Amino acid sequence: MARIAVDMQELITKVTVVSKVVPSKVIKPILGCVLFDLTEDGVFLLASDLETGVKAKLNCEYEGFGRFAVDGKVFYEVVKTLPTDVGASLEITPASLSIECGKSKFKLSVVDPSDFPEVSLSESSVSFEIDASLLHKMIEKVIFCAATDEFMRNLNGVYWELGNGFLRLVASDGFRLALAEERLEIQGEIGFLLSLKSMKELMSVAESCGDRKLRFEYDGKRVGIVATDVETLVRIVEVEFPDYKRVLPKAFKTKLVAPTNILVEALRRTMVIAKRGSESIRVEAMENVLILSSRSPDFGEVTEEIEVRKEGEDIIAAFNPKFLIEALRHIETDEVELNFIDSTSPLQMNPLDVEGYLYVVMPIRIV
Amino acid sequence: MARIAVDMQELITKVTVVSKVVPSKVIKPILGCVLFDLTEDGVFLLASDLETGVKAKLNCEYEGFGRFAVDGKVFYEVVKTLPTDVGASLEITPASLSIECGKSKFKLSVVDPSDFPEVSLSESSVSFEIDASLLHKMIEKVIFCAATDEFMRNLNGVYWELGNGFLRLVASDGFRLALAEERLEIQGEIGFLLSLKSMKELMSVAESCGDRKLRFEYDGKRVGIVATDVETLVRIVEVEFPDYKRVLPKAFKTKLVAPTNILVEALRRTMVIAKRGSESIRVEAMENVLILSSRSPDFGEVTEEIEVRKEGEDIIAAFNPKFLIEALRHIETDEVELNFIDSTSPLQMNPLDVEGYLYVVMPIRIV
Repeated sequence: MARIAVDMQELITKVTVVSKVVPSKVIKPILGCVLFDLTEDGVFLLASDLETGVKAKLNCEYEGFGRFAVDGKVFYEVVKTLPTDVGASLEITPASLSIECGKSKFKLSVVDPSDFPEVSLSESSVSFEIDASLLHKMIEKVIFCAATDEFMRNLNGVYWELGNGFLRLVASDGFRLALAEERLEIQGEIGFLLSLKSMKELMSVAESCGDRKLRFEYDGKRVGIVATDVETLVRIVEVEFPDYKRVLPKAFKTKLVAPTNILVEALRRTMVIAKRGSESIRVEAMENVLILSSRSPDFGEVTEEIEVRKEGEDIIAAFNPKFLIEALRHIETDEVELNFIDSTSPLQMNPLDVEGYLYVVMPIRIV
Repeated sequence: MARIAVDMQELITKVTVVSKVVPSKVIKPILGCVLFDLTEDGVFLLASDLETGVKAKLNCEYEGFGRFAVDGKVFYEVVKTLPTDVGASLEITPASLSIECGKSKFKLSVVDPSDFPEVSLSESSVSFEIDASLLHKMIEKVIFCAATDEFMRNLNGVYWELGNGFLRLVASDGFRLALAEERLEIQGEIGFLLSLKSMKELMSVAESCGDRKLRFEYDGKRVGIVATDVETLVRIVEVEFPDYKRVLPKAFKTKLVAPTNILVEALRRTMVIAKRGSESIRVEAMENVLILSSRSPDFGEVTEEIEVRKEGEDIIAAFNPKFLIEALRHIETDEVELNFIDSTSPLQMNPLDVEGYLYVVMPIRIV
């Protein structure tokens, strides 16, 4: 038997973090559980869906040692509804977990913990530190380009490239590609793919850590992101990411500089018609004017005019406006650069005069 | 041909109001349309799904008369994405509706307006004025009890009872019933049922009118709610509402007074277990203590204790906690009265010392 006395706010915080990993549908009951691990180093809460694992240290008073598993969703809901202004006392036996908090008493069933999956790294071969907010921003800038189809395993995630003093994240769904990079002190050179699901988990960890530093660790099979009290482990996907460097365009014939927000607004309007037609818009740059237009056989047509600065040749091309809007939302500069080769080659978009982010999108054939 | 020059903010407001009525799936294309009616009295925007109709006056400059119909969803989306800081000019011909706004140009297809349904009342037999905020609050207090199944036509709505200086709204799904009433200057006595869909529309109209007065009109077949510039018409449902007065309990054997919020919180916690078991909780009042408990064969059990003031006999009964929580959310007093007869009779809940709202819920048999 074991006893834990804990502040409710601390319990809610840690249970919330680990519960996010508990899958809503489980193959084995133990995977739907949160594990209490009472050790000499402290009390840890653990959850794992085999791909992602989280281990959070619970700051509490306790007596007794052992591992106890309880249904993760039920425990989360119980903890979330309990009053936060009092403490809770937990009593765990091999048969039940009792919670007393104010005038509430819960007695929850427990599950045999012996099958609970391992949540820890082997010896780490690569490690570095990164600001949580920076990592969050990098992930956000590329993750929307990843393929959402789980069967496209090599694109259903984000590729990490580390080395030469850079961390580079790349995602693509075959129609478009986003790349974000930052200078970082990194030893060695490695590249690996993390699934979209794992990336979402890491993004939420990074977001919850605000301005703090994260320690990154890699043991060849798994990646660990360690914050104070909370450790998140994700398994790498063992498939090859395509050679993205071959997609990046080299030389351009037309360069446009456009006001980012005005371009986004104009694209949103063309979308109203485009999504009821061929999902494409025509993009035409002549002199210093960019003309966007679209047509739907049933609903009508739209034309937008935007003043731009142009270098190089006139250009006519067609794109899915959704792909342009989604990228522009991640460009934080007032102006954006659109770099064209010709109407059949990929368009590269990037913030004006800022390094570290670029976006490539394939055109649609003009009919 | 007709021309309209209008401020974008005014256009957005009025298109938003009428678009809400445009059904997402339509049997005939004309029902998916917004109608422009340019008359000597002004320009009106109209929409109807045959059950609910809305007519909004557009404050604008215009020339030309006639009726023109355009796809409601497309028009709404176009208007919502246009810049709001400039005016728009519309040009309507029997073939198209052109919109120019800043550097945006749309040319939308139009639909033959001849089949557009009638949106106006016959001569009104009953009419009164009511504060929009009061009507909104009354609807909110009962609408959650209406049956959501469209095939239960006589319960899938809210019953209006007018007369004897009262407006009374009643809704029930057969398991519970809510009744809200207010004193109002009303001539005559009538009762009619409005569908849940119509009620939601009226609730949103009342909400959007804030503190203003609404004029209510009734012509025997339809109800009109008239606000400045906007008139909403709903058709009554021609079926009989059950005799709800027979359900209202008369004399009670037990009266509890409980703190509303503490009771809600305790119910939310019992729900965590109850929804994983028989969806019922046991309610037991002895001395001045109310004990709530529930049990799930797979997940465990919960007990809650609440201090209450009790008059009359001890009581044990069982309820669906969801039905109790939903009613308590609409009780605004710090304390709530629970009036019991016995474990098989309906429980009446009402705010302490406040008239005009009561809620009746059937117990579950204790097994």
